[in-house]
Order: sequence, then structure tokens, then C-alpha cells
Amino acid sequence: MNGWTLVYEGFDPAEESLRETLFTLGNGYFATRGATEESHADDVHYPGTYLAGGYNRLETEIAGRRIENEDLVNWPNWLCLTFRTNGGEWLDLTEVQILEYRQELCLQTGIMFRHVRVRDRQKRETTFQVRRLVHMGDPNLAAIEQTITAENWSGSIEVRSSLDGRIKNTGVKRYAELRGDHLVPLQTQRVGNEAMLLGVRTKQSNIQMAQVARTRIFREEICLGLERRTIHEACYVQQEFAFEVSEKCPVRIEKIVTLKSSCGRGDTDCVDEVLQKIDQLENFNVLLRSHTKAWEQLWDRCDIKVLCDERTQLLIRLHIFHLLQTVSPHTINLDVGVPARGLHGEAYRGHIFWDELFIFPFLNFRIPEITRALLIYRYCRLSEARRAAYSSGYKGAMFPWQSGSDGREETQVVHLNPRSGRWNPDHTHLQRHVNAAIVFNIWQYYKATSDHEFIEAYGTEMVVEIARFLVSLTSYNSELERYEILGVMGPDEYHDAYPDTGEPGLRNNTYTNVMTAWVLWHTLRLLDCLPVNRRDEIRETMGLSDHELAHWDAVSRRMRVVFHRDGVISQFEGYEQLKEFDWDRYRKKYGSINRLDRLLEAEGDSPNRYKVSKQADVLMLFYLFSEDEVIELFSRLGYPFESKSIQKNIDYYLERTSDGSTLSSIVSSWLLSMSDLSQSWLLLGHALESDVSDVQGGTTPEGIHLGVMAGTLDVVQRCYTGLMVRDEVIWLNPVPPQSLQRLWVPIYYQQQWIHLEIRKNRFVVKLRKDARKIVKVGFKDQVYELDPGDSREFQL
Amino acid sequence: MNGWTLVYEGFDPAEESLRETLFTLGNGYFATRGATEESHADDVHYPGTYLAGGYNRLETEIAGRRIENEDLVNWPNWLCLTFRTNGGEWLDLTEVQILEYRQELCLQTGIMFRHVRVRDRQKRETTFQVRRLVHMGDPNLAAIEQTITAENWSGSIEVRSSLDGRIKNTGVKRYAELRGDHLVPLQTQRVGNEAMLLGVRTKQSNIQMAQVARTRIFREEICLGLERRTIHEACYVQQEFAFEVSEKCPVRIEKIVTLKSSCGRGDTDCVDEVLQKIDQLENFNVLLRSHTKAWEQLWDRCDIKVLCDERTQLLIRLHIFHLLQTVSPHTINLDVGVPARGLHGEAYRGHIFWDELFIFPFLNFRIPEITRALLIYRYCRLSEARRAAYSSGYKGAMFPWQSGSDGREETQVVHLNPRSGRWNPDHTHLQRHVNAAIVFNIWQYYKATSDHEFIEAYGTEMVVEIARFLVSLTSYNSELERYEILGVMGPDEYHDAYPDTGEPGLRNNTYTNVMTAWVLWHTLRLLDCLPVNRRDEIRETMGLSDHELAHWDAVSRRMRVVFHRDGVISQFEGYEQLKEFDWDRYRKKYGSINRLDRLLEAEGDSPNRYKVSKQADVLMLFYLFSEDEVIELFSRLGYPFESKSIQKNIDYYLERTSDGSTLSSIVSSWLLSMSDLSQSWLLLGHALESDVSDVQGGTTPEGIHLGVMAGTLDVVQRCYTGLMVRDEVIWLNPVPPQSLQRLWVPIYYQQQWIHLEIRKNRFVVKLRKDARKIVKVGFKDQVYELDPGDSREFQL
Repeated sequence: MNGWTLVYEGFDPAEESLRETLFTLGNGYFATRGATEESHADDVHYPGTYLAGGYNRLETEIAGRRIENEDLVNWPNWLCLTFRTNGGEWLDLTEVQILEYRQELCLQTGIMFRHVRVRDRQKRETTFQVRRLVHMGDPNLAAIEQTITAENWSGSIEVRSSLDGRIKNTGVKRYAELRGDHLVPLQTQRVGNEAMLLGVRTKQSNIQMAQVARTRIFREEICLGLERRTIHEACYVQQEFAFEVSEKCPVRIEKIVTLKSSCGRGDTDCVDEVLQKIDQLENFNVLLRSHTKAWEQLWDRCDIKVLCDERTQLLIRLHIFHLLQTVSPHTINLDVGVPARGLHGEAYRGHIFWDELFIFPFLNFRIPEITRALLIYRYCRLSEARRAAYSSGYKGAMFPWQSGSDGREETQVVHLNPRSGRWNPDHTHLQRHVNAAIVFNIWQYYKATSDHEFIEAYGTEMVVEIARFLVSLTSYNSELERYEILGVMGPDEYHDAYPDTGEPGLRNNTYTNVMTAWVLWHTLRLLDCLPVNRRDEIRETMGLSDHELAHWDAVSRRMRVVFHRDGVISQFEGYEQLKEFDWDRYRKKYGSINRLDRLLEAEGDSPNRYKVSKQADVLMLFYLFSEDEVIELFSRLGYPFESKSIQKNIDYYLERTSDGSTLSSIVSSWLLSMSDLSQSWLLLGHALESDVSDVQGGTTPEGIHLGVMAGTLDVVQRCYTGLMVRDEVIWLNPVPPQSLQRLWVPIYYQQQWIHLEIRKNRFVVKLRKDARKIVKVGFKDQVYELDPGDSREFQL
Repeated sequence: MNGWTLVYEGFDPAEESLRETLFTLGNGYFATRGATEESHADDVHYPGTYLAGGYNRLETEIAGRRIENEDLVNWPNWLCLTFRTNGGEWLDLTEVQILEYRQELCLQTGIMFRHVRVRDRQKRETTFQVRRLVHMGDPNLAAIEQTITAENWSGSIEVRSSLDGRIKNTGVKRYAELRGDHLVPLQTQRVGNEAMLLGVRTKQSNIQMAQVARTRIFREEICLGLERRTIHEACYVQQEFAFEVSEKCPVRIEKIVTLKSSCGRGDTDCVDEVLQKIDQLENFNVLLRSHTKAWEQLWDRCDIKVLCDERTQLLIRLHIFHLLQTVSPHTINLDVGVPARGLHGEAYRGHIFWDELFIFPFLNFRIPEITRALLIYRYCRLSEARRAAYSSGYKGAMFPWQSGSDGREETQVVHLNPRSGRWNPDHTHLQRHVNAAIVFNIWQYYKATSDHEFIEAYGTEMVVEIARFLVSLTSYNSELERYEILGVMGPDEYHDAYPDTGEPGLRNNTYTNVMTAWVLWHTLRLLDCLPVNRRDEIRETMGLSDHELAHWDAVSRRMRVVFHRDGVISQFEGYEQLKEFDWDRYRKKYGSINRLDRLLEAEGDSPNRYKVSKQADVLMLFYLFSEDEVIELFSRLGYPFESKSIQKNIDYYLERTSDGSTLSSIVSSWLLSMSDLSQSWLLLGHALESDVSDVQGGTTPEGIHLGVMAGTLDVVQRCYTGLMVRDEVIWLNPVPPQSLQRLWVPIYYQQQWIHLEIRKNRFVVKLRKDARKIVKVGFKDQVYELDPGDSREFQL
């Protein structure tokens, strides 16, 4: 382990599903889970490769209710490449003796490598080595190389290479009742002497997908001009070769695949396009070089280097790597969003959640064009959000909690508790706070980039419409002279209603209310930032009267926040009256209790009765805002709030959080950086381990947790460096934990690259020599101007 | 006529087709030709509304050769709205006596208006007034309002409103043999009480299109809750109403349409999306207001105000208007190009040509985000251009002369001479200079915007690949020690081969050779502008060696230019040996000779034999480059070239140009601004009239000439103001023609708005008060800094 390579030794069928997720290769255009090539060649159910941003809405009836089952669409599986010896069975790793098994994911080069040595019943020993890539330079390319060596025998080998569209979505067990078959055949054909084609389209969304695979076999770098037999079926095409091998003489197979979907371009004839490319396909080694170069350039922008234990370094890079498997420069000109579980599994069916809130900050300071494209993705669904608000009786635009491909609310209306086997109503769509998150994301992006064009052409319109929506959610409590929001859910999904009531939703969720105040205030600030002319235009177009703005200002100063009697902020009105939970009893009873909701529901109870949180809710405020900002917000609302209350709230809620959401450890790590750096570092470590060790026991095989992954990066990038942009100055205030001896972070700010190096008691900021303009850096109330090439050291 | 309204009085069936083009309404997402609502209600062949950027490749065999017939796709016709009285015939303007007929296009508000008064055989007089809009604020909306008044009778009226997808492409006569039917039915249905739905998809490209129309009838602003009969057919749906009218009591019909296509987003269920919108449809007057506001803001950015004759003002605005019908802010997030004939007709089948060269400069200084999106459209087709170069044996990327929707070469291989009835081979795809135009466009965009992100992420890659291609076109003539390009065509389409040879193409077309030198030189300059790091990355990714760059430098200094013996630049090698043409004889014989190619071919002759040009070729150089730049270019090539030679060349070629291309008058007007301003103004006038008066006698009904339209704007915007950006300074050097007493031009430069006002002997430059930064303005070798709000006057 050198901080770059994830290694597994030994074949472990029980662990394979987790490895498949962790070994996923992608480039933003598509991703491929790291299944072995051969073991699934006959398994038509294997969900292998996901189409970026393409979701397929299919409907299923469950318990008499219609479920919108908008799954991630699978590409046909391009991996299938296997062999058999002397007319025996096709290789099946569970049927042979495995002598050696080693699997590596090289993060630096984006290459997956396997070394396997097997002995069959006839005592024949065979070694095969596989290298695989999903090309980061050309998003339409992927390649496998397999080298087979007969170790102690000579004889015949048959190789089978195929493209398999008979694939189904079966990656998440509890979705088993939902439809999983999404592809219908268009075309299969042999192409020229060396290749084959598969064209399919998706059933409901009518997306065309086409793949061409060229398979070549080499001995001593000479391409064998073998005859091949091509076999077609609906949605499936394969080619078989037979040849002789001699002991110890390796044979090398190359399968180069080009793939294309009509997603994002309605008028593309994908079959035609992949056919056109066949003559230009390079050999594996050429592709490997260009692929590696593309990765090199990405790492140059995206790496975080840490001097501490090697595993931390490795996991940080693993998280960067998987972020870039899902969104990359290739995503920028596609109409795609960033799914909460990456392109790594089928959980959440590829929907877009508020997880962007945790994903964008890292990207804002590395490849902000990606954030921009993802915000434009939201903008392109603004009219759907307007319709949703309208049809629910609200104003403005209401973005959904789970956004499907056309921007519609796709939150399930019932969900399965695998523990009880019951389908229960799901009210999570009441998490209206996702709208505040979008505004927050726009504001953060704008601060990091000063992208005036975006804010004038798209951002302001979205922000204003969301502000309108949030105001229309409020009602005035004339007794308290405060604005309230009733009937919603906060981020904590353990609380969706008051105990023993039929009505879903809670009153005055603090996070939602304070964010509403913040949104309204910042919408006004944003309007003030615009050139007068553009502001007037937007106001005119949107019919934004002085009266409406004055109302927003009023609401932004009079949103209600409920406090406990001892001054702790109540998660929502009535939280204080809930019962304390007997944590010890449940921990003893169940061991892991991070899905308390399922445990309690199975017992006929409900977390709604207790002071328990699945994840940070009130605490999100201290995560999103600095101490100064929080105090300013509360003082603007006319609530006394002191700096020392922050810690009190943190302590109160951390004690009552089960961390049923993996995002919580990010928030906790961030919050503890203020008071207990080594505990913060410990929690960061937990968060870094969460997917690689599948801490929730089975969720990672359903897809990575991209919010957590990106969140860990952000803890290092912004929290431990104290990075904050204010008035076009980058403020720094490094707080490196004890175990972090040194930290290198490149920061892209206003189109310039700044290099940050942080040590125990000093840090250095350097503006790259080829920068086009000066950059202002702030430290301890003082602002310094860096000229291109300047580097400046500060003492901590 | 007030400089804003195009007015036609009287119904003229012969002129209707021209008016349809000129009255086209659009918003970048779709456009609708200005046909009357009622006259075509039964004409299923009427091609009405075009889908932006959606092209449908269908193949036809003509004369044994396969023709790629990639037509503009028609939306179903949403206009159909007609009536009949007392159970008589449906209104047919050719069957009634027309008492009054007035048609207006208000450019300021984007409203088409018709006032018609008819008398039928029963002497009943009826007035109807129509207002129509294609919404500029919401690209998915369109609306018609029709007010009917029974002037001297009372009785019953029936109204028929429909959506008609039985439409065919029949707008260009000489394409009659190509396939015209592109739509297949998906769905028709009545929607709620007031609306109907039509869903179709295109045959080959599989684009979904859906429309919902809500029709309401009002009397004295009361909506009549009339029963309606809905009739379905494949690809067609209609609703009929019957009611009573009283003499002099107007009845008002509103048809509000929402439309959506899957183009640009592969996974959209359009039918579902339009159905979702039905509840939110506003009334006509509300839509009119929001539409007008959107136009007001567009005019604020895009207007050119001139003080001279009112017709010039009107036509300048007409050209701005039609540019914005085709590309607008709504185009920015779509994957669409700018078709040479707008979205106004079927000529050239919606293909993308080099006309961008004439279209982008105006946009660069008004809404550069549109130019950027159009350049990204090219970038998205770079891999197709690479494939094209590869399969023709060249290097780099070869963009096609006529680019179809997926970026493939779609130039016809034979074309019809309607005069002779013969299909002749077409070699125009040999116009490789389109590639130089793309580089020129990128360079101009970059200079105008300093958009480093674009140039680093997309622009440089395109430029380098085109440079590679152009170099691979060259061959070395060791005798002359010069690089040559053989077998191509220049912009002048009268010359596609040497007389009496079978081989297509010409040797050493000067425009192509000099542009190649310019491209190579500027590719090197562009690479030098990049941050070192990014340049290294690009060089590495693209395998750009020192050797290759040195070779480009060498070629850029040694391209061959052929001169006549008297020093005039030869259009191509051998041009001097061609015969002089007897212009007088042909002018006498044929009257209009601007399609000399067709005349000569019909006589069995060919323009290849003569010194005749359809359009500027050599002269393009003096159009694209300033005097200083031309001299620098030639001197870099090692050819002596003096300033006075420019005029000699201009005179020589203008004498030999038939102006068979309407673009020529733009180039001529520009060139003459140096020597003969009043002649330049006269030619600008010709160019302004060319579409509105259909000077080529029948080409405008097949679509506007967008290059010419935008070109006229650029003559005023850049040529008469002398606007040029150099080293981040806006240089001005106004040369207002005598007839142009005053000129106001807003200029958007580096995200700031500058206002330019030019009079006879002075001009004023003003930087808007809400600008974010200073702007540098240069005049007569001196540079001035303008602070926000500053205004500065210069004497001429």
C-alpha cells in the first residue's frame, strides 16, 4: 500500500459484492462495477454498468400503491470475457481450486488489475491476469486485457467475448418487487472481421444505447488472425474463438469497447456512431497511455496529499477517485445530475437528493465547471419545480426531495422495512429543506467563482423562485408575532410525525425555519449584488414588487425558532416533550442500532416517540455556518444566542444521534474540530472507513455514499484549513489535527491555482506562476495580495 | 412605419410564401412560419414550424445515388384555427371577397397581427383580427388570439382548432424527390374540458414531440363554457365548437399551446411533460405581457439605433429579430447549431455551414454565451470530425462543409439544376476552408470575451486538431520550396474544377492557403497564451511535439500564394489562364445573371472556364483582416505586398463577381468602406433588402439568409465603428457614411456594457454605471480607461 492502491488478496465470494462497488470504474459518462469478467458471463441478472443521468421511469404496484420506479439504467454488460480449456466447462471460480488471487485498484492510473491462478479437476494449472479501464480521456471507450498462461499443460482453449443486454436491475434486494428489466433489443451484428455490435433501447425513456466490441488475441505480440463464430440472440451477441496453447506460453486477449447513448442528445443514431468508430480503435496499450495521462491531469487538480498514516491517504484518494467516477469533466456538457449513491449501485434508484450540499464544496475549489453544470441541471428542471409548487398550492418553485430525471418528485410513497417485512408510508418528501440547500449551493458556488454570468442568467431566478416557495410555506402566528412552517420534515428522518397522530409532518423544524430565514436574507443580498439593470430586468420579469421584497425581509427577521427551557434549540416544536431513549438497552439488545427506525417499527414502536435522531438536524446549522454567521443569523431573528450555546447544542444532540445516516459522521467531525480536534480526526477516520469497510453492513454494495465521500474531502479541504471566501478574499485559518503532520491542497479560486501547504505550526500559500491575476489571501484579520509566482509563509 | 413594424396591406397569394418567411416567429427553441391560421387548415402538406437543431436523416435514391436527406424536422402545425358561418364552407380567403387585409409584424414586441374583413357569397361581412406570439420568455409556449365580428349579420359560427402532425417537408421545390414525411403518431387525446393533446415522433431520429392546445372562446371577456367535439386521427386532433353571434358583437378565441420535444434530452417523456403543464396555462393577455417583457430585455441588449431613413432602421431591426428567432438565450443549454437559413425554411435542410463566420461577430458583442454554446456544439462533434479526417487519410479533425445533426458531412453528392432539369455532381464538400473559419470564430470569440475557461477546456483542442488537419492537407513543392494545397475548393462555388478535366478540385486556392498559414500561426499564438501548466497538459494529451510545432511554424511561413503577372492575387493556380467572361452579353440575354452556374450548365457550358466568381474568395481576406493584418500575413509568408495592392485586388475581383451568393454584398460593402463610403452604404442597403425583397427571386421563401442578415448588423457594428479588440483594449475608429447621421450601439465586452454613440464628427463612449470593472478604450494610438459610469467624447 503506497497511498495509491487498494489491494485485496484472496477470493472471497461473500465479499465480492462490496468489492464490486469499491472497484467501480467510471468517467462521468458511464461507470462499470468491478465484477470479474468471467464469473458473471452467464448471469443475465448481473447489473454491471450504469448510464450517467439516465433514469428509466417504470411503474410497479406494491400494496395497492403505485411506485415510481425510476431506476438507474444499466448499459448492456461489456465485461463478459471468459475461457474454457480442452472443451471443459467455462471458467467458474467457485468450481476450481484457487491458488492465487490478488485484486488491485490503482487510483493513480484508474486501472483495475487481477491476478488469478487456478487448478482444475484435471490438475491443470492456469494463470490469468486482467487489466481493465474505463477511459478517462475519451468517455466512450473502455477496454479489458486478459493474459492467460497454461502453467503445466498444453492444449486447446476457447475464448468467449460478449455484449450482454439481457441484464436486469437486481442490485438492491428490497427493490425485488420493482421492475428490473429495462432494455429491449434493437440490433446485433458481426462487424467486419474482428468486432460485434449490440444496440438496445430502454423501455420507457426510449434511450438508445449501442456498443461495439473488438476482440483480438495475441501471442508474443502477434495478432492471431483467428476465425470467430458470432452468435446472436435478442439483446445479446457473442464471439467465440478456439486455439491451441503451449505450456508457459502466455496468450493475450484484448477487448476494446466503444459505447454511446442517445442520452443528452435526442437525435443521435448511436448504432451508426459506434460503427463509425470501429476503424479507429487503438490497441490496449495505446489506450492505457492516453487514459493514464488523463488521470494524471485530473490528479493534478484534485489530489489531497496528507502526511499521516498511509491508509488515511489511500482512503482520501479513494473518495476523490469515486467522486470522479461519477462526475468528471465529461459530465459538463451532459444534462446529468449527481446521484447520491454515485453510479456505483442501484440504491435510491439514481435519484438526486440534497447530498449535493456535501458534494459541491470540494468541486467548487477544484473543477467548479462541474458544479456549474450540476446547478444548470437543476435550472433545467425549474419549470417542473414551479409546476410542483403550483399543484401543491404554493408559490415559486418547489424542488423535490428525490428528483427523477425530469425533475419530478420521485420519493417513494411506501418503503419496505426488511426487518418486519412491512411496507410503510413514506413521508420523506416533506423534507422541503432541499430547496434551501439548492440556494446555499448556488451561493457557495458564486462566492467561490464570482461567476456573474451564471448568477445573472440562471442563479438568481432559481433563488428567487425558491425564496417565494419558502415564504409561501410559512404562516403567521399572530399570538407569537412569528412566522411558522408547519407540516414538514427536517433532515432527521427518524421524525416524520408526532406520535399517535395520523398527520405526517412536524411543526417548526428549526433547521428548515432558520434556513428559510437565511434564504430570504441572502436572496435580498444577491439581488443587491446584481448590476442595477439586470436586477431591474429580473424583478420585472418575475413580477418582484417592493412589497414582496419587504415581506421577505420581514419574514427573514421573524421566523420562529423553538427552544427548550434550558435554552437548547429544539429540533422542532414539541421535541422537548418526547421521551428520552434507552440507548443502552437497545445497544445491548441489537448490537448495531444505527437503523433504529427499522428496529422500532418491527417492535411496533416508532422513533417518533423519542429524543433520537438518525442524523444531524439542528447541528446542520453549525456545520453550514461559522460561529459568527450563526450568531448573526440568530441576532437578526431577534433571538439571543451566545457563542457558548453552540457547544451545548452540539453536546446535546450528538448524545441523541444514532448515526443512522453516514452523513452524520461528517457533520460531527466538522463540529468537533472546534472543540476536540483529535475526536474530529477520529470521526473523519470513521467516515473514511464507512464505505470501504461497509460499516452499515450491506449498504455499500448497493452503491457508495457519495455525500460522505465528498464530505470527508471537504473536512480536510475547508474545515482543517479554515478556508472561507468573503468579499473576494480567501481567508485561511488552519487547524491541523495532531495526527496530520502535513497537508497539501491545491485550490482553484477565480480561475487561478493556489497551492496550500499546512504543517503543525506554519503554512505556506503559493500562487502559481502562470496565474493571470493577483489573488487576495486573508489570515487573522489581515489581507495579503499574492502576485503570480508569489509564495507566502504564515506562522500558526 | 416607425422603424419597428413591418406592414403589408392587401392579400396577395403570390407573395404569401415570402411573407410566411418574413413573418416567422420563433424563440430559438422552435419557430413558426407566418402562414395564416385558417388558409392551411386543410392542407396537410403545409410545413409550418421547425424544431431547433433537430434534423432527421432519411435517405433517398436519386439518379442511382444515395442522398442523405437530413431535413429540418417540422413540429406538428399548431396554428390551425378557422371558422365557418351558418354551416357554410370553412373560411378560404381565395373564395371570399377581401374587403380589408392588413398584416403587421411588430418587431419590438414579437407579435404578428392580421386584420381581415371579408364578404361571402351571401353578402355577409365578417371581420377577424389575429394576434400571434411564440413566447420569448418561456420557450415552450405559443399563443393565438382571434377576434371575430359579424359586421352585418347574426347567426351561427363554428370554430375549429387543431394540431396537425400530418405535415410534410415540401417547402423547397427542387427537393420534391426527397422524403418529406417525417412524423409518426404516438398519441392523441382530449385533455380535461378545454384542451387536446398530440404526441408524435420522428421516423429516423426518434425525437418525441408533444403539444397541448387549450382553446377558449370569450364574449365580452366572459369565457363561454361551450361543449366541444374532439376528433382524432393518426397524427391529428381537432376540436370544434358551435355558437351564436350577433351583429357587431365580437367573439374572441384564444388558443394557447405548450410544446416540448425530447431533442437535447434523451430521457424526457414529452407527452407527460406537456400534460403536466396544462393547469398552469395563462390567458393570452398575460402571456402577451410576459412575452413583451422578454423582448424588451432582448432589445435592450441587441438593438442598433440609426438615424437615417426609416426603412434602413426597420430592416436592421428585422435582421436582429430574425437572428433572435433562430438563436436566443434559450439556445444556450440546447445542443443546437445555427442553420444557414434560420429556422425559417427548408433550404439547405437545416445544415450548419461556414455562415457562422458572418453570424458570430454580432453575437460576440451582445450575447456571447450564444456564440459559446454554438462553438461547444462544434466541439461536441469533434470526434466525428476526427473520424472524417482519419477515414479520408488526413490527420486531426476535418469539420464538414455541411454539418448534419451528428456532425457528419451531409453535403449533397448531386444537385439539381432546375433550369436544365439535370442532376449534376456536387463537389462543394471540398470547401475545407470551413475548418479555418471555425478557428477564426474561436479566436474572435476569445478576443471579445477573454473566456479562458472555454479556450482551455475546449477551444485549444479544436484549434490544434484543425491545424493538424490543414497541415496534413499540404504537400511540399520542392521546386518552389513552398507548401501547397491541391484538390480543394475556395468559397467561390463557380469553380470546382479545372475546365475539361474529370478531377474535382483546384490547386492552391489563395484563400484556403492563406487561411491555413493564419491558422497555424495563430494556433502557435494561442498555445503561447495558455498558462504553462495547461499548455503542457494539452501538448501531452494531444502528443504535440516540438517537432510538430516547428513544422507548423515552417508551413505557416511557406504556404504558396499564386499571383497574376501584374501582381493581382490569383484566386487559385491557373485562374489567370481562364477566359474573360462576356458579362454584357449574358446580362442582355438573361437579365438577372446571379446564378450564372445554372445558366451556363443549361447551355452545356461551365463557369469553370471563365474568370467569374459567384462570391468573394480572395476578397474574403480583406474582409476578415485589417490592412495591417493582411500586410503582416503576407510579409510573414515572404511575399511582398503593399497596402495599395488591396484596392487593386478589390477592383479586379468585384468586376468579376456575379453576386450569386447574397453574402457577397456584405463583403463588398465592408471592403468599400475603405475607399468609397457612400458605395458601401448603398451595398449595405442592397444587403438589407435582399431577403425582405427576395432579390434572388424565390430563395427567401425557402428560408432567410442568416449570414447576410447578421452580416449587415456586423457592417454597422464593427465596420462603421471601426471596432477591434487588441490586447484587451477596444479600439474604435468610426467611419460613418454620409447618410448615417447618428448611430447608437451597445457593446458587451468582458461582461460589461458599453454604449457607443457616433455622429458625423464626434463619438461618445460610455461605460454603464453598474459595470463591475474598468474598460480600456483605444482611439488613434491612445488608450483610455473608463471607470463605471464614465463617458468620454472623441472628435473625428
